[in-house]
Amino acid sequence: MSDLSHDARTGTVVARIPTSTPEEVRDVVARAAAAAPAVAAATPAERRLWLVAVADAVQDSPAAAELVRVADRETALGEARLTSELVRCADQLRFYGDVGVEASYLRVTVDHATDTTPDLRRMQVPLGPVAVLGASNFPFAFGALGNDTGSAIAAGCPVVAKAHPAHPQTSALLATVATTALADAGAPEGAFGLVAGFEAGEALVRSPEVAAVAFTGSQRGGLAVWRQAIERDVVIPVYAEMGTVNPVVMTAAAAARTEEIAAGFVGSFTLGAGQFCTKPGLLLAPAGYDVPARVAAALQSARPTGWLLTEGISSAYGSGVAELVGAGAEVLGRVPGPAEGWSADATVLVVAAADLKPGSRLLEECFGPVALVAEYADQHELTEVLEALQGALAASVMSAGAEDPETPHLVGVLAPLVGRVAVDDWPTGVAFTWAQQHGGPWPATTFPSATSVGAAALDRFTRPVTWQSAPASALPPALQEDNPWRLPRRVDGELMT
Amino acid sequence: MSDLSHDARTGTVVARIPTSTPEEVRDVVARAAAAAPAVAAATPAERRLWLVAVADAVQDSPAAAELVRVADRETALGEARLTSELVRCADQLRFYGDVGVEASYLRVTVDHATDTTPDLRRMQVPLGPVAVLGASNFPFAFGALGNDTGSAIAAGCPVVAKAHPAHPQTSALLATVATTALADAGAPEGAFGLVAGFEAGEALVRSPEVAAVAFTGSQRGGLAVWRQAIERDVVIPVYAEMGTVNPVVMTAAAAARTEEIAAGFVGSFTLGAGQFCTKPGLLLAPAGYDVPARVAAALQSARPTGWLLTEGISSAYGSGVAELVGAGAEVLGRVPGPAEGWSADATVLVVAAADLKPGSRLLEECFGPVALVAEYADQHELTEVLEALQGALAASVMSAGAEDPETPHLVGVLAPLVGRVAVDDWPTGVAFTWAQQHGGPWPATTFPSATSVGAAALDRFTRPVTWQSAPASALPPALQEDNPWRLPRRVDGELMT
Repeated sequence: MSDLSHDARTGTVVARIPTSTPEEVRDVVARAAAAAPAVAAATPAERRLWLVAVADAVQDSPAAAELVRVADRETALGEARLTSELVRCADQLRFYGDVGVEASYLRVTVDHATDTTPDLRRMQVPLGPVAVLGASNFPFAFGALGNDTGSAIAAGCPVVAKAHPAHPQTSALLATVATTALADAGAPEGAFGLVAGFEAGEALVRSPEVAAVAFTGSQRGGLAVWRQAIERDVVIPVYAEMGTVNPVVMTAAAAARTEEIAAGFVGSFTLGAGQFCTKPGLLLAPAGYDVPARVAAALQSARPTGWLLTEGISSAYGSGVAELVGAGAEVLGRVPGPAEGWSADATVLVVAAADLKPGSRLLEECFGPVALVAEYADQHELTEVLEALQGALAASVMSAGAEDPETPHLVGVLAPLVGRVAVDDWPTGVAFTWAQQHGGPWPATTFPSATSVGAAALDRFTRPVTWQSAPASALPPALQEDNPWRLPRRVDGELMT
Repeated sequence: MSDLSHDARTGTVVARIPTSTPEEVRDVVARAAAAAPAVAAATPAERRLWLVAVADAVQDSPAAAELVRVADRETALGEARLTSELVRCADQLRFYGDVGVEASYLRVTVDHATDTTPDLRRMQVPLGPVAVLGASNFPFAFGALGNDTGSAIAAGCPVVAKAHPAHPQTSALLATVATTALADAGAPEGAFGLVAGFEAGEALVRSPEVAAVAFTGSQRGGLAVWRQAIERDVVIPVYAEMGTVNPVVMTAAAAARTEEIAAGFVGSFTLGAGQFCTKPGLLLAPAGYDVPARVAAALQSARPTGWLLTEGISSAYGSGVAELVGAGAEVLGRVPGPAEGWSADATVLVVAAADLKPGSRLLEECFGPVALVAEYADQHELTEVLEALQGALAASVMSAGAEDPETPHLVGVLAPLVGRVAVDDWPTGVAFTWAQQHGGPWPATTFPSATSVGAAALDRFTRPVTWQSAPASALPPALQEDNPWRLPRRVDGELMT
């Protein structure tokens, strides 16, 4: 059995990558389980060294060039985009290493004994082997060595990644680079492993040794993985980050800059051939400013073209656009994609706000370069539409600037629906910083309290344990009285940095 | 339809408490949903005032006396225990209010814009109405006004509690006291509500407006609630804290104090008629010191007696003990309970370590005053038993003191299995402090990263949201640049207290 590596620009098979047999999956998982105590026992600084070694290795010239070449052939995302994504991937690995070393994620809390309470010391401990089912659309930043892998290793968990069928050769190359770099850096064998193939992915999620799953992809795929996990004897957390319609609301005063907003909207929803999980799928614009037509004009003027990642995505895109039309949307503009390969027509649809009802297909994601524009007559109609929306990863308000009186209210209404609300920024673009939140209410994710990007991404792979009245010899270094690792701690209720 | 209030000491019905109709459940939930924005928008200091008002009200003399009287009749836990539990309940409410005001739970994180990243500001926001399905065994501390209710309100969420069928009249009284106190303190109507009856509980969990569930009770009950929640259109988190066999391991050197340990073990497993979720259900003792017989002797000498909470618990206890015997355990000592009511025979069973295999009934909880003692021949046999254990809330090591060379290894082996590992303390007794962890790996809980006691209990009822490039007017006070609430924050990666 093989994963087929295709050239997305032509649709032809360029390589066959063997998938993992059940025995191979068991073997990779067993190695991860065997490595787990050593990965957990390593200091955050040691784990940062490993991550830096992987980061350096993927950025090393021959490897980087080969990775970009292979990934570009498999994804057609373009060398420029992939080159910068590879830098991001490496920088992310370093960032998670730094977050681990800063060590607030351990949440060390010490309560000395009192007359009525015992000595209690609490910290986060690693969960154990993590299965990473990466994204199609970011082979580097959200792939086998993406945010999930970086944050899991930083938090002390071995990772078994599954190769993505949209870029199996890239995945295998990344794994080779990582495995070599980790070995050279002295990481335990099994700290990182890769399996390939659909059945291997399911076997991975069902493996008793696997303690958590991180998934990035479609709602259908994410919920399938979540169902596998809740059928286990020991249910494990599935952090599935799934695609959503990320709404953008334009205030009335923002109509003064419709041209700029229309161009920005087109740029955002066609970025990466519309294959961003934060793609703005719906623009809600005040009626009376001809916004739909101006978005269509902006599309014609930008003439974005590109390929989708796989034949499956390409065919789902075609039927998805047809479903949106069937549900009442009307094609307002279309730019045909390239003649060959898995190309996609960039498409703007217009829809009546009254048709945006709870449960409508119009309010579900269509992966690819398509977006809806709807005009709202007044605040009442806008509120009705916003109440119909599903949970989403992100939302934006496009305003007339900092003094726009509508912004506070709209931000307040959108925040409960999303993980991130932006003002005068497009939802695409997810910086990896301390304050980032890449997640959101069900069904944007299966775990609304988690983030898959940013410093808090480590939290997903730990759980708290409290040591009660334990002698110094039985305490982990992080909990010892003299604080040998010099960690930020809370002692007797007081935060100490 | 009514919940029947029984006198546990006689088994007779002493009152009938009407259960909620479907319309009444809808009404209570609708009021909670209507209150949610105001509860969320209140400052932590305002919410602390509400919680203090409730705490003061339950401790107010006539109310306190009536609560203890009614609860003692329904639970037979005794006035002394219930009087101190009521104080604990009130102190917990105050504690969660204080934790809210300290406000680290908001995890305010501010990243100023850089050349490559936008201004990002992240904080935790309340989830919305929380359903609280409290415990049978602690009518006050884990009941309608227990840890779950206190931490949910402190975190900004309205609560709808379900009356427990083991103490419906106590639940109703608590709700009346709380509702009056909250109204007097100026809390929004709907900040707290109560429903009664089995069907009402299920309707509550399935209500679209309910955003999270906190449950304390049996594994069977907790998993049933969890299943209801994962069948919803919008799946919500269920924080179910369920009963477990909390293992106690005695080191070889600790044999020198077998008598003290035997007496302590009996005291711990018969506390509250063995109805603690942290009851030590299994003592693993070194062979050759006659520990089982000495535990049996300690039981005869202590002669603990008491009643179980309900007829159902009483009958499950009888069949549970029979199942343990059927699975290979042998009765080594038994102290008959009182002749009348839902009494229970306190029982010590001995079992061969070799019979403690994964999946055995011997490794599942039996709620009530029963515990197993098993002797291990050597470290190898001990390790095999420990590897067979399910996840648990707590575990203890009984040692020969701080210098016992076995302690560090045993603590290290037990920590991955539990939420809390104690040394020379019994697992019963769960202080509510900053460093407490009351939770544990599946199936001890459905949510191993959560705690239902201690400062981190608030975390269960919030999720993060990031504001990106938002003008000051659209930011919540906690995120504003001048930090008007003087909160601990992380700014540009640096922790500031």
